[in-house]
Amino acid sequence: MEKILNYIDSKKDEHLAQLIEFLKFPSISSDSNYINGMKDCANWLVEQIKSIGFKNVGTRKNVATIKQDDGTIIEREGHPIVYGEWLEAGPDAKTILVYGHYDVQPVDPINLWHSKPFEPEIRDGRLYGRGTADDKGQLFCHIKSLEAYMKVYGKLPVNVKLLFEGEEEAESSLDEFIAKNQDLLKCDYVVISDTEWFAEGVPSICYGLRGIAYVEVKVTGQNRDLHSGTFGGAVDNPLQVLAWMITQLKDKYGRVTVPEFYDDVVPLTEEERKEFAKLPFDDEEYRKDLEVGALSGEIGYTTLERVWCRPSLDVHGIIGGYTGEGAKTVISTTASAKISTRLVPHQNPEKISRDLANYLRKIAPPTVKVEVTELHYGSPVLLDMKGKGITAAIDALKEAFGKEVVFMREGGSIPIVSVFKEVLKAPSVLMGLGLPKDNIHSPNESLKLENFFGGIRASALFFNNMK
Amino acid sequence: MEKILNYIDSKKDEHLAQLIEFLKFPSISSDSNYINGMKDCANWLVEQIKSIGFKNVGTRKNVATIKQDDGTIIEREGHPIVYGEWLEAGPDAKTILVYGHYDVQPVDPINLWHSKPFEPEIRDGRLYGRGTADDKGQLFCHIKSLEAYMKVYGKLPVNVKLLFEGEEEAESSLDEFIAKNQDLLKCDYVVISDTEWFAEGVPSICYGLRGIAYVEVKVTGQNRDLHSGTFGGAVDNPLQVLAWMITQLKDKYGRVTVPEFYDDVVPLTEEERKEFAKLPFDDEEYRKDLEVGALSGEIGYTTLERVWCRPSLDVHGIIGGYTGEGAKTVISTTASAKISTRLVPHQNPEKISRDLANYLRKIAPPTVKVEVTELHYGSPVLLDMKGKGITAAIDALKEAFGKEVVFMREGGSIPIVSVFKEVLKAPSVLMGLGLPKDNIHSPNESLKLENFFGGIRASALFFNNMK
Repeated sequence: MEKILNYIDSKKDEHLAQLIEFLKFPSISSDSNYINGMKDCANWLVEQIKSIGFKNVGTRKNVATIKQDDGTIIEREGHPIVYGEWLEAGPDAKTILVYGHYDVQPVDPINLWHSKPFEPEIRDGRLYGRGTADDKGQLFCHIKSLEAYMKVYGKLPVNVKLLFEGEEEAESSLDEFIAKNQDLLKCDYVVISDTEWFAEGVPSICYGLRGIAYVEVKVTGQNRDLHSGTFGGAVDNPLQVLAWMITQLKDKYGRVTVPEFYDDVVPLTEEERKEFAKLPFDDEEYRKDLEVGALSGEIGYTTLERVWCRPSLDVHGIIGGYTGEGAKTVISTTASAKISTRLVPHQNPEKISRDLANYLRKIAPPTVKVEVTELHYGSPVLLDMKGKGITAAIDALKEAFGKEVVFMREGGSIPIVSVFKEVLKAPSVLMGLGLPKDNIHSPNESLKLENFFGGIRASALFFNNMK
Repeated sequence: MEKILNYIDSKKDEHLAQLIEFLKFPSISSDSNYINGMKDCANWLVEQIKSIGFKNVGTRKNVATIKQDDGTIIEREGHPIVYGEWLEAGPDAKTILVYGHYDVQPVDPINLWHSKPFEPEIRDGRLYGRGTADDKGQLFCHIKSLEAYMKVYGKLPVNVKLLFEGEEEAESSLDEFIAKNQDLLKCDYVVISDTEWFAEGVPSICYGLRGIAYVEVKVTGQNRDLHSGTFGGAVDNPLQVLAWMITQLKDKYGRVTVPEFYDDVVPLTEEERKEFAKLPFDDEEYRKDLEVGALSGEIGYTTLERVWCRPSLDVHGIIGGYTGEGAKTVISTTASAKISTRLVPHQNPEKISRDLANYLRKIAPPTVKVEVTELHYGSPVLLDMKGKGITAAIDALKEAFGKEVVFMREGGSIPIVSVFKEVLKAPSVLMGLGLPKDNIHSPNESLKLENFFGGIRASALFFNNMK
């Protein structure tokens, strides 16, 4: 192991130069103007993986089957999936699937960047550029640690499959690819480096993610826009009905009122609450950072518990009536809102989505008609905190960074984790290398160089621990 | 009189063609993109009035004095006022001021129009286009009847002053103009055709109007848009706060909850309630026409009472967060709404506007900041049902349309009526020519041609009756 780690430490300049090359591809998956940036990036990644000695390496077609509103099915080819494998550790060795994504978020608002998003720049021990932390920089740590094994020993301690998608920041259809390629992707564990540490200097293993159920509701009242002078006071107002319906979705204690909503929620354990309470977190700092007069949420829970372990409900958009300049005295026929709930284990997103839609329909007064569209959903995840994978990751991070490792959960969703669990029957290990200040999805995204170099070491240690 | 009426009837095609010219100007006063449409329309009106032989005709500058939040005063030039006069009937003859407005409402939602709003089209005996009924078509009746007198006799039976403003549908500052030009505008009566009949075939004189107080409220939460996965459940959502605040504005009996709101409301008399009950009105027809499952409003009052004699509160527009296609999981920093109350005698619009704004500020939770802008207000009106003006209008409508005339009130506002009363000491006569199905302020606004042509006759008869 010593030899591997020394090799890794001796190659810092080379690793950094290669990462910068990788980051220069403008691989924005959600914008069709960047289709070439996506292809070039995927091909570059293929060459990298080939060069370290992996087999069966190439881009794979990713075709999504989409059911349209009229019932017809169309196929849409998505961005290429990069795959490669090295399976010579033998049938008794564990097989680890490394998942990551080479696509990145759009760069708007571009004027807030201090250096160009696709021309990475080092400032104060950080590498700035789109994709540095999310997720090119993190996934590259695994490629470089595997390269180190191949260069030093010509082999790996375990079997490894690499799966890098190009649609994580868009409408991913990787779930279909996994379903169709179960043999190809068969593995014992999945390792994913696409999450953040709890804080700088606090290496963390994430063991829980929230799911999501997202609906759109449209309220329609009378058949035409009305003049509020002539009709005001005699006819219900769809905007006020929608406002009332939204208000009905939570009670005065901040709890979601959809029937059976909490039935399947796994309660926080006393141990979890104690562990969370030990983390370096301060409500007052959090409040000041957001510049709000007060925090708010479900009664009886701390902020970390609220965002990590309790479901929530948010309205993301609302529109209706006259929204231009000045005054117009219209009673609008319609108003609509986008609403989602974040879900925790073992809430079923499909059931919650349906229950929320039905509840909205049910509480609607007879003065209006209500249409609810279920837009999408994703499962929450709770990973085993004890298995071999987690232990290997904890030990790897601890040794690579020389710090104690904490357990944490995240409020966001990585829907693919539940697909790995359900389809491949493989537990995931979320060995994140990012930090809260990396500004992912925002201008001036960056990755701390210490976390990049340490991440390569941690990856090498992880594979060794999985022997 | 016979001669005048015959002349009017012989000019139908010409009158209609001129009205269509008038309607083609996109004179939307509340939207600064239409500044040229406003100017061109005002100039066209000036030429019309000059051409019939009026004196002292032109546009007048309308300067509003605005007190800003910091106490400083600014002047804002408003849309031009069109003025003209013919005062040769002598000092003993009555002087009638004709008031109308050439500005129109915005046209959104444009996709619901069956023909273009500023390219008038005749279908089934109606002229469709923005402003047909409100108020270009109605005010034009007076111009055409005065023209008929001038063409046939070279003079009018009374002195006439014409005052057409361009800010009735925006933030009107006509009240200031009137205050500064009391000599110019001195008159015995004001006649206004900007209201509707009770029903088709039921010519009506309106003796009561509601007032208005209009505010805009903006709710601001945290300092940046947040990801609902990472923050959902721990921070209040400005869209949901706004929805809740809107819901707080009415109690479960449909009553407005702003403190002291009802203190100055003049109660309905038993006589009024009896008269209203006799009018040909049916809740079930009203409900079916609007295609709603149920009517709704303040408990204890009939539909007519609700819209004519009771104050109401409506939200006219609401917007916040992501309103594009598909799903975005943002917690938006801001949300805003436009809200107005319709007021009845003797509610004071200035006080109600301030009370509503203060109430919104007061109920806002500490999780958000709230800004309320008072956009405009207008006084409610209750007119004398007996004087010479009203009698002249009743007789004119009865003869022009060959039907009995009824007394009614209206839910809408014509704030200037109370200014005429208080500043010029002149009673107004609301000799409306519109119909409930004219769709004013909505897509497919129209004017029944029969009412337009009959309206010109009624106007001619009215001036004669005022001799």
